[in-house]
Amino acid sequence: MTSPSGTDATIMDHLLNRLNSLGVRHLFGMAGDYNLAVLDRVLLHPGVDWIGTASELGAAYAADGYGRTRGFGALLTTFGVGELSAINGVAGSYAERVPVLHIAVGPTQATERVGLVVHHTMGDGDFDRFARAHRQVVCADAVLRADNAVSEIERVLATCVRESRPGYVRLPRDVALSPMSPPHASLAVPNEPTLSQESLEAFRAAARARLAQADNIAVLADFLVDRFGAREELAGLLVASSFPHATLAGGKTVVDETSPHFLGTYGGAMSEAPVRATIDNADLLICAGVLLSDMNTGKFTHGFDPNEGIDLGITVAKVGGTAFPDVPLAAALVVLTELVNERSPAPAPKGSSACRTLAPLAHLASDTTTKIKESATALTRELCPSTPLTQSYLWQAVGAAVRPNYTVVADNGTCLLGIVPRRFPRGARFIGQPLWASIGYTLPALLGTQLADPSRRGLLLIGDGAAQLTVQELGTIGYHRLKPIVVLVNNDGYTIERITHGLRAEYNEIADWRWPKMPAALGVPNPLVLTARSWGDLDRALSEAVATTDRLVLIEAFTGKDDIPPALKLLARNRPDKARWVA
Amino acid sequence: MTSPSGTDATIMDHLLNRLNSLGVRHLFGMAGDYNLAVLDRVLLHPGVDWIGTASELGAAYAADGYGRTRGFGALLTTFGVGELSAINGVAGSYAERVPVLHIAVGPTQATERVGLVVHHTMGDGDFDRFARAHRQVVCADAVLRADNAVSEIERVLATCVRESRPGYVRLPRDVALSPMSPPHASLAVPNEPTLSQESLEAFRAAARARLAQADNIAVLADFLVDRFGAREELAGLLVASSFPHATLAGGKTVVDETSPHFLGTYGGAMSEAPVRATIDNADLLICAGVLLSDMNTGKFTHGFDPNEGIDLGITVAKVGGTAFPDVPLAAALVVLTELVNERSPAPAPKGSSACRTLAPLAHLASDTTTKIKESATALTRELCPSTPLTQSYLWQAVGAAVRPNYTVVADNGTCLLGIVPRRFPRGARFIGQPLWASIGYTLPALLGTQLADPSRRGLLLIGDGAAQLTVQELGTIGYHRLKPIVVLVNNDGYTIERITHGLRAEYNEIADWRWPKMPAALGVPNPLVLTARSWGDLDRALSEAVATTDRLVLIEAFTGKDDIPPALKLLARNRPDKARWVA
Repeated sequence: MTSPSGTDATIMDHLLNRLNSLGVRHLFGMAGDYNLAVLDRVLLHPGVDWIGTASELGAAYAADGYGRTRGFGALLTTFGVGELSAINGVAGSYAERVPVLHIAVGPTQATERVGLVVHHTMGDGDFDRFARAHRQVVCADAVLRADNAVSEIERVLATCVRESRPGYVRLPRDVALSPMSPPHASLAVPNEPTLSQESLEAFRAAARARLAQADNIAVLADFLVDRFGAREELAGLLVASSFPHATLAGGKTVVDETSPHFLGTYGGAMSEAPVRATIDNADLLICAGVLLSDMNTGKFTHGFDPNEGIDLGITVAKVGGTAFPDVPLAAALVVLTELVNERSPAPAPKGSSACRTLAPLAHLASDTTTKIKESATALTRELCPSTPLTQSYLWQAVGAAVRPNYTVVADNGTCLLGIVPRRFPRGARFIGQPLWASIGYTLPALLGTQLADPSRRGLLLIGDGAAQLTVQELGTIGYHRLKPIVVLVNNDGYTIERITHGLRAEYNEIADWRWPKMPAALGVPNPLVLTARSWGDLDRALSEAVATTDRLVLIEAFTGKDDIPPALKLLARNRPDKARWVA
Repeated sequence: MTSPSGTDATIMDHLLNRLNSLGVRHLFGMAGDYNLAVLDRVLLHPGVDWIGTASELGAAYAADGYGRTRGFGALLTTFGVGELSAINGVAGSYAERVPVLHIAVGPTQATERVGLVVHHTMGDGDFDRFARAHRQVVCADAVLRADNAVSEIERVLATCVRESRPGYVRLPRDVALSPMSPPHASLAVPNEPTLSQESLEAFRAAARARLAQADNIAVLADFLVDRFGAREELAGLLVASSFPHATLAGGKTVVDETSPHFLGTYGGAMSEAPVRATIDNADLLICAGVLLSDMNTGKFTHGFDPNEGIDLGITVAKVGGTAFPDVPLAAALVVLTELVNERSPAPAPKGSSACRTLAPLAHLASDTTTKIKESATALTRELCPSTPLTQSYLWQAVGAAVRPNYTVVADNGTCLLGIVPRRFPRGARFIGQPLWASIGYTLPALLGTQLADPSRRGLLLIGDGAAQLTVQELGTIGYHRLKPIVVLVNNDGYTIERITHGLRAEYNEIADWRWPKMPAALGVPNPLVLTARSWGDLDRALSEAVATTDRLVLIEAFTGKDDIPPALKLLARNRPDKARWVA
């Protein structure tokens, strides 16, 4: 067991070792008097750094962004006030399937036993309220005691890994500092989900029959491919098959977007025409790790039923609605790849991605193609450098600025819907939160992902309304001298809500902040602050931002109060009945 | 029933009417797509204004500050993400006994029935998770439906009023907009708690006997006097009796602090010597609405047992440990006043408060008095305008700047412990949160209290660490053109934690913000920003702040990294074993 030299190992050291073995090298959170001595153990731990945030919600969002990048994240808060401030972020990890551990450090067991009226409690001797609240938003929780800590830590962490969801431990301070029994074997994480060979073979037979019936086959992939470690297996299928494929918003960058067979982002009536046509009109649609929600389907305007095709879930694969349990996502993808190779044993050469084919467009009516070309020409014709910035141009230009080593983090609303249709270079990664959709999430998530992988540069896309929720963590980003690019879309309020309801209603207004002053006010060292009101401004700003890698860059990009990204215009045109964004 | 003219009244209108009847004129919260149409009803309501905050936690804190000032507060958030972000603030209202209603507006019942996978859910069709989480931190909760809304609103609001605690309603959007049955009678709030005449008379007899045995009688009052409407009754007892009296930190300003019989703030070993001696050495201590906690007793260093005296709780009065149930606080105080008048029927003349007596000091050993005088002389001798600012001088000067129409809001930690011992002029009010002790609470609470009573000026005392948590609401304060004074104590990190543990530990460091730039960055119109590094600076800044009533004033006051207020020095001197602030 790793323990600081010259000191006896404690339960906290053990917990840190376990987290470390899951890839955790940074622990986010805030100091509070109950946890200070416990934080000493963090500072002493050779493998885990303490990252103090400016708010606990920020810590939870950061841990989520970290978990998405390194496979596991963790936060530590103080009892009551701290842990409850973080709970929305933890709940987001549950919805979006991110494994994160929330450690809430509280008063000693002696304090509990006597029921002392101490701060951060209700004064009623009930020390379990906040654990009960967390039970609603985590997949496993425990109150750690000296005699159960080893087994409970194993259980909670293993459940987090297996379910790819957050867990919670309530940790009395004295328990955390209790001496630890001798080193334990390595963490018994469920490396592989249960696989039934029988079920897998039955799935193979059913899938073979279904594939044989289909001429036009397409693949739709989503975020669960990422969370359940099936990226490589999906890539294998796509290379072997050359099936046209798309991703849902949350699944952006789970596939190589430079592939000639990549259609783009699917979002029902929000999709660009070729994507929509290919996915909706496929004879056989293979869904991989897909969770259909209002946000990723253009309010359920998708034109297919997963039960009519092959639907690969986390542990259950379905063919034509028939379920094959204990067939994990990755294994099912391997089977499909084998079936494809049976049909056409010669896989496409590795260099094929450089050679673009128009295969996916074959499904399109020719008039649609013509319209797209006309529209592109019209856009080019209208543009001169002084043309005021529009959402259309903004996302086109931002998308083009993405580099292979970027992680693009897009806040829900116009930023997410604006950027997901843009094709990223191979290697670029995407983080969004289309299901939980908590605005402000991305700014701390940027902190998390930057620390999780310093070799990548973060590119944050966030609206002025969303950024107000979590702005303090821009100071934390500066404190750690991280150097992301932040594109702050200033459209003077909650535009995504305006177009839903209350176009000029007071409740969609926000305080008018002076964003260019903000990085310096938050102590960000030597920030580069740029402003873009025209497409010329934006082009220059993006070029400068990409080239300026030695400091944080903030681009304040102004767009019209009611201007919306193309995806929402498509939704309004294709399905005006669904254009108001509310369930 | 009040309803916008030309429209049919809805359940939301009814709820707003009910809140309005409880004194609510401002509803705090954030817009989210589920609640937009519901917010239309708020905008249309003649008696309730919408106050959009920059974060939901800010809304909850603001509603709490509002509730403390006007007797009831309310916030409205969106399902899932919004309500969970607010939950720590709501929990604080529970601990600190502030009646607040949290309205969480969610998807329609049709969406729930089908179990649609919509944003802000876990995607599993469970729409009750967040209500279950709230159940841990409220005194009453309900899921409103068209057929139960009237009765459930009555039940939840009445419970909030009776218990002086927060309630929660989950409100599907379509339910909120459902037409409402004809106007209802006025809200059946429990105006008076249950009183047992028999129990009251038994209490009277026991108290009479106990009073007869005592020579030195003192009174200790706390925040429950404020929350359960017993200020006048307490004042009656204090005027009739001339008993020396003190308050606990959370009870500051529940009594007239200019009274010659007011001792100051009691805090066990943190107390100034005369306060401590008088309270701890009383033959009979009358506790009124007291809740003893670690924070308000100097870590339980109080020198009395409430069970040995007369202890007036919310609904139970005790004499020498014998409980008299159904004797509410106010009624018990009236009985004690009557008993005092029996003993000495001539109450002190009204003008007595102008004539200061040294009665409370009679209990002091003469050497203590001498030491205090010496220390005061030493302080004066050392001071010249360029003397660097210390916590001692800071709180002395800030205390002296308080005007009768001020509401002083002090964040937990050095600000609260620094200001509570300072005597305020009659009329000044105090807001603190010593039990829940959630740092950052006060900045949004300032917003709430300023809107609740615009005739009063807010004076916020907050540390740099705490202010980072909720800084965005300074923008909201500016947006509404409120003009408080903010004293930002910059001591470069979490000083209250430093002196507890980890004096130079990394976890007590914070990002180094540029506070003078902050108001402008947050869009505060024409802020006056002042800096104080010496006592001369501070005197000038406070004078200017008090005189400048037409705009927001921020004073950044620098104190030493490890400098602490006198109360904590007293604790360290009197009880070094308790000086580390952790349970």
